[in-house]
Amino acid sequence: MKILGIDPGLRTTGFGLIHKQGNKLSYIASGTIKTPDADLPQRLKVILSGVSEIIRTYSPDCAAIEKVFVNVNPQSTLLLGQARGAAICALVAADLAVAEYTALQIKKAVVGHGQAQKQQMQDMVQRLLMLSGVPGKDAADALGVAICHAHSGETLSALGDLAPALTKKGVRVRRGRLIG
Amino acid sequence: MKILGIDPGLRTTGFGLIHKQGNKLSYIASGTIKTPDADLPQRLKVILSGVSEIIRTYSPDCAAIEKVFVNVNPQSTLLLGQARGAAICALVAADLAVAEYTALQIKKAVVGHGQAQKQQMQDMVQRLLMLSGVPGKDAADALGVAICHAHSGETLSALGDLAPALTKKGVRVRRGRLIG
Repeated sequence: MKILGIDPGLRTTGFGLIHKQGNKLSYIASGTIKTPDADLPQRLKVILSGVSEIIRTYSPDCAAIEKVFVNVNPQSTLLLGQARGAAICALVAADLAVAEYTALQIKKAVVGHGQAQKQQMQDMVQRLLMLSGVPGKDAADALGVAICHAHSGETLSALGDLAPALTKKGVRVRRGRLIG
Repeated sequence: MKILGIDPGLRTTGFGLIHKQGNKLSYIASGTIKTPDADLPQRLKVILSGVSEIIRTYSPDCAAIEKVFVNVNPQSTLLLGQARGAAICALVAADLAVAEYTALQIKKAVVGHGQAQKQQMQDMVQRLLMLSGVPGKDAADALGVAICHAHSGETLSALGDLAPALTKKGVRVRRGRLIG
């Protein structure tokens, strides 16, 4: 199962693709979509076509997106909402099921607690996916959403007791923590 | 020139299409896209596909959308932003140029002053487009955005002195007021 994770933003939208086979997670791709200093419709178009291009290239089976926090500045909240709307449009236009997770859920799933800093997220994403380098912040967040989805709900219950019946190269994870 | 106006909303998105020929405005179509009580991605999908369907059906030449006001409730602002993002996505995906107008600009263009009530907007939209009945509030707002765009910027300057070189059936408008 290929999972596409999205960390939405008007200036920078992070994306991360992972492969989930049984309990094993592996890295496929990640990066960012950056919008130019243009008017809002043009910036939304870049997000829409960027995410659509990623879907065409990697054919994910499902998607997960971060629930954005409500900004102190209402105008920023409105802009962020529109950017997130554009990213979701690209996902649903491709008929992908879209799961939503809060930053807290993602941090718990990846780092194990909700107080994780950006750097900890990046480090844990690197370890969980056995990356040779530390991913950028936006890409790490997007990969984090995908990891969170891989560990969530039905997926977890399907794994039963989370018995570590993992391949040699697999990553042993319990409630989002590396245990092997 | 066919102009598509959009009044965005998560629950109800209004749309209105008008035809502009010289100084004459005429009504083509209007209505609302209503989203079901579903999760956010599904609701955005309804807006995206609804607006896309309208574009396929009527082939507008350009589009205009209301700049939404920032709500008191940040969560509502975020939801409205996402709905507006979905509507804009449908427009830019069809390569339509998208103009944005504030509610104040629209009221001034349609009613002549910025303190217009909903009912006044509906009445003036009915008169300007010579409709047999009063349009619904969301449809009237969407038609109002389209009328505002028809009267704005380049269009206005192209009309020179706003000389009433109007056809018999035409509507005479000066700064958004009916004068004939």
